Amino acid sequence: MTDQVTTVSIRDVTPRDGLQAGSPVSVAARAELAVALADAGLAHVEAVSFVSAEAVPSMAGADEVFRLLPGGRTVWWALVPNARGARAALAAGAGSVTVTVSASSAYSEKNVRRTTVEALAGLAEIAGVPGASGAAFDIVVSCAFGSPFDDVRSPAPVIEVVEEALRVIPEARITLADTTGTATPRRIAAVLAELDAKATSDLGLHLHDTRGTALANALWALEQGILRFDTATGGLGGSPFAPGAGGNLATEDLVLMLEDLGVSTGIDLDALLRIAGSLPALTGHAVPGRTALAGPLPTFDSRLPSE
Amino acid sequence: MTDQVTTVSIRDVTPRDGLQAGSPVSVAARAELAVALADAGLAHVEAVSFVSAEAVPSMAGADEVFRLLPGGRTVWWALVPNARGARAALAAGAGSVTVTVSASSAYSEKNVRRTTVEALAGLAEIAGVPGASGAAFDIVVSCAFGSPFDDVRSPAPVIEVVEEALRVIPEARITLADTTGTATPRRIAAVLAELDAKATSDLGLHLHDTRGTALANALWALEQGILRFDTATGGLGGSPFAPGAGGNLATEDLVLMLEDLGVSTGIDLDALLRIAGSLPALTGHAVPGRTALAGPLPTFDSRLPSE
Repeated sequence: MTDQVTTVSIRDVTPRDGLQAGSPVSVAARAELAVALADAGLAHVEAVSFVSAEAVPSMAGADEVFRLLPGGRTVWWALVPNARGARAALAAGAGSVTVTVSASSAYSEKNVRRTTVEALAGLAEIAGVPGASGAAFDIVVSCAFGSPFDDVRSPAPVIEVVEEALRVIPEARITLADTTGTATPRRIAAVLAELDAKATSDLGLHLHDTRGTALANALWALEQGILRFDTATGGLGGSPFAPGAGGNLATEDLVLMLEDLGVSTGIDLDALLRIAGSLPALTGHAVPGRTALAGPLPTFDSRLPSE
Repeated sequence: MTDQVTTVSIRDVTPRDGLQAGSPVSVAARAELAVALADAGLAHVEAVSFVSAEAVPSMAGADEVFRLLPGGRTVWWALVPNARGARAALAAGAGSVTVTVSASSAYSEKNVRRTTVEALAGLAEIAGVPGASGAAFDIVVSCAFGSPFDDVRSPAPVIEVVEEALRVIPEARITLADTTGTATPRRIAAVLAELDAKATSDLGLHLHDTRGTALANALWALEQGILRFDTATGGLGGSPFAPGAGGNLATEDLVLMLEDLGVSTGIDLDALLRIAGSLPALTGHAVPGRTALAGPLPTFDSRLPSE
């Protein structure tokens, strides 16, 4: 089935999801990382989060980071947690905004001290901020394939959140997030089958590798027609220090597999590996991504006999 | 396509591939590990290697380990490097023997100081050892999806080794090994397509996670009809201390994905995770397997709407 796929869109979320749980890194270094990713061919980069600096010190100075990002072809995404964040993001010039709503109310309460219903009300507030109508929105539905608090036991609550979110912002894209790495090929198939029935248009996946399934899930989703993925270089993300936490699907692992499959990503793997190689110095710890350690593939003529 | 697959056979190679590159572990602990794996439901366990104790100290005392393994339903595999090893294995009572021949002559020379042609001649010597005709053979073709020395640049040398090996031992099963983690879905498809044309019967895969691709490769191979995999609990294997080396596909990661897909493995995931949890104490280092750290999945009803 992948024979028909020629292009996949990857959004690298390293400067946001990759760095948010770690020790703070300077504004200049965060902007430099975002620009390096763009230079490596990433057309979409989630560069900042307009959260409160008290809550997430590593994301402080989002507006300063944003000011250092060049205009041009790169789409710079800014995560906003609420209307206040949305106002700050729009004031800084952000034109592409991600908002997270969790399918797990328990996770939502723990993470942002709001139930899912309250988070959806918050989404409406964000959409009502002056200037918001001019922005592109990506609604990231977290815990979309199961919850660590066991309150997402089927696709049903995920579909409900997607439907409600699209009622609030009909033109938004939707990204299903496997926040704690509980997705499997079958769970993805089950959620996509239900969503297909609802004819959701622009759908992406945000995968974490908590149980080593991220790349297999991406491959499976690709076969099911998903052409948009969130990843982080070096597989950063989550907390590398918390037992059981897992980083994002590594950008370079996905690029390596896709390009080998003949699917174009527009991304320079060597440049990406150089960025991955710079991350231990930036973050102060090793990265979990495996291609980052192993390097690119040796040559192999994998044309099929029929080609 | 996986809807048609109901059972997959997994051979756990932890006591051999998982421990061979580490500090030596006692004979009793190695036997205990092998038995624990069998008790968790592994019907096939590669328990020992009859290599020279000087060359690989961690594998010394293979015959002693073998004597501690109970008879019954478990198939205990013994790796043998040459005729001398085969004689020792058969004398110890091994009835199932793995022999490795590398598709990469450069790797073969570095690993066992023999070219591929010499290794194939060695295979004939092994087959000629008295009693060998009564044993089951699995010929593991290493570097089957590319070589770190860049001398396996297409499926051709792999097919040649398989064909020659089957000329020597026609009833042998063949296991294609991704020794240094260079396999990708496409490379696997290319090799399988060539082998299909040769109508090889019993084909398995031995995958390493050097570039994070092991589980995606397994999923892809499963879709192509491969029903037999080598894995190691905790993702042990290779050298955890050498930059770029990657462990085996983790048994528990594969079991988790397969069981979630509705494919039966006969393996108790909880028991497997307990074994994985015991490995850091046994080996003296953390294991790379991710489910080993994260634990099993929360509940999720992933029946498809049509079911």
